[in-house]
Amino acid sequence: MARESDEKALELPAGIAPAVILVEPQLAENIGMTARAMANFGLSELRLVNPKNGWPKKGVREAASGATHVLDGATVFPTVAEALADLNFVLATTARERGQMKRVFSPEEGMAEVCARPGQRIGVMFGRERVGLSNDEVSLADAIVTFPVSPDFPSLNLAQAVLLVGYEWRRASGRALLPFAGEMQTPPASREALIALFGKLEAALDAAGFYPPEKRDGIARNMRDMLHRMAMTEQDVRTFQGALKAVSRAMKTGGAG
Amino acid sequence: MARESDEKALELPAGIAPAVILVEPQLAENIGMTARAMANFGLSELRLVNPKNGWPKKGVREAASGATHVLDGATVFPTVAEALADLNFVLATTARERGQMKRVFSPEEGMAEVCARPGQRIGVMFGRERVGLSNDEVSLADAIVTFPVSPDFPSLNLAQAVLLVGYEWRRASGRALLPFAGEMQTPPASREALIALFGKLEAALDAAGFYPPEKRDGIARNMRDMLHRMAMTEQDVRTFQGALKAVSRAMKTGGAG
Repeated sequence: MARESDEKALELPAGIAPAVILVEPQLAENIGMTARAMANFGLSELRLVNPKNGWPKKGVREAASGATHVLDGATVFPTVAEALADLNFVLATTARERGQMKRVFSPEEGMAEVCARPGQRIGVMFGRERVGLSNDEVSLADAIVTFPVSPDFPSLNLAQAVLLVGYEWRRASGRALLPFAGEMQTPPASREALIALFGKLEAALDAAGFYPPEKRDGIARNMRDMLHRMAMTEQDVRTFQGALKAVSRAMKTGGAG
Repeated sequence: MARESDEKALELPAGIAPAVILVEPQLAENIGMTARAMANFGLSELRLVNPKNGWPKKGVREAASGATHVLDGATVFPTVAEALADLNFVLATTARERGQMKRVFSPEEGMAEVCARPGQRIGVMFGRERVGLSNDEVSLADAIVTFPVSPDFPSLNLAQAVLLVGYEWRRASGRALLPFAGEMQTPPASREALIALFGKLEAALDAAGFYPPEKRDGIARNMRDMLHRMAMTEQDVRTFQGALKAVSRAMKTGGAG
């Protein structure tokens, strides 16, 4: 998984992020959360077709939680055909089969298809909260995207569907970099440091009378196994040795020295 | 991408779905939408640690949009340690680096790790809406999951973070089947049917005087290219031929026959 420090090296093409088209969306909360989901994954072009009960809507900016730039840039169209007019390739999200002879993609497959069309203007259509897209609206799209939801509970919230598409687009386009990396960046401690640590630990446990005599070596080896699994770095070994030193001193003097 | 008809053949192991642990969640809407997101991807074990401003909360059932079975089954704990007690492997979701020497996974990598631990009880922790998890809480986890969000807008809504983890778990565990397939299931029309269609189309266009004489063959071949790209099935060819027949008849008789 690439980290953000690799981003400049990637030389990603500009202008291929798909437009998100909401057809007759109703709830301010859903539109606002759609804007937020888009911003989370680097999408910014929002098109609204004939929003129900007017536009702009009360409460939509709060629901966008700071992604108001997406709302401010949103374009409103009276019909689906007008919203799609300039696009070269269009995907329609549907939960149910529509009896149309269309390719059906998972979100991952759909976004791979998008990234295979550099320079084309792409749109992804999302339907009304309750009834989705009409069959006629679906017939204006090239292909369908559907979500691999549980058949026991298939109804995805509108903004959550947008989130999944944005997330998969970001992955497919090579931009899905994690903001930070883990400890794997630091190499494990040298064998010398580890063996020295084993020695100090076993000496301390011997002095504490911890080992039952007949089991001493077996238990010591089990503990070495545990320490191996800790995959200690040099710093970890120093920390552990510092703790052992304090404990060993306290055992000799009978208290914190 | 496997379709749901393959599901029985998969013989998926039971009991490996991770528990979702929300630490001091505040908004009813977020908890309800978390339950919905979990149900969408087949997660059902929700654990709430010390929900802010009490539990149950007004409005949480509405926000769950039918996923109330997840809410009804949710367990409430006073502390994180108690919520995690019975788990064998724990992931903590964080947006920022925490200065801890932990493995950091993308959601995809984290869920692959979960699926590599069949039979283990797994939990994924999600923090407070505003401030996330504390460093001490993160220190109780084995590893971190972070999301490949845009650095320009990294703040993911709590329920949306849960959705992404559920989605990636479903994919990693081989359950991410699409509810329906596309037209690829039907083979293309035979060459014989296609060639017959070319003949009928070209005869109709000849009769209509469509082709400029010196360009006739070139245009006819371009149209054959377009028809190839349509990837017509036998049924498509019959439909097209029916349309041609009606048009050809009307051209002879001067109107709809």
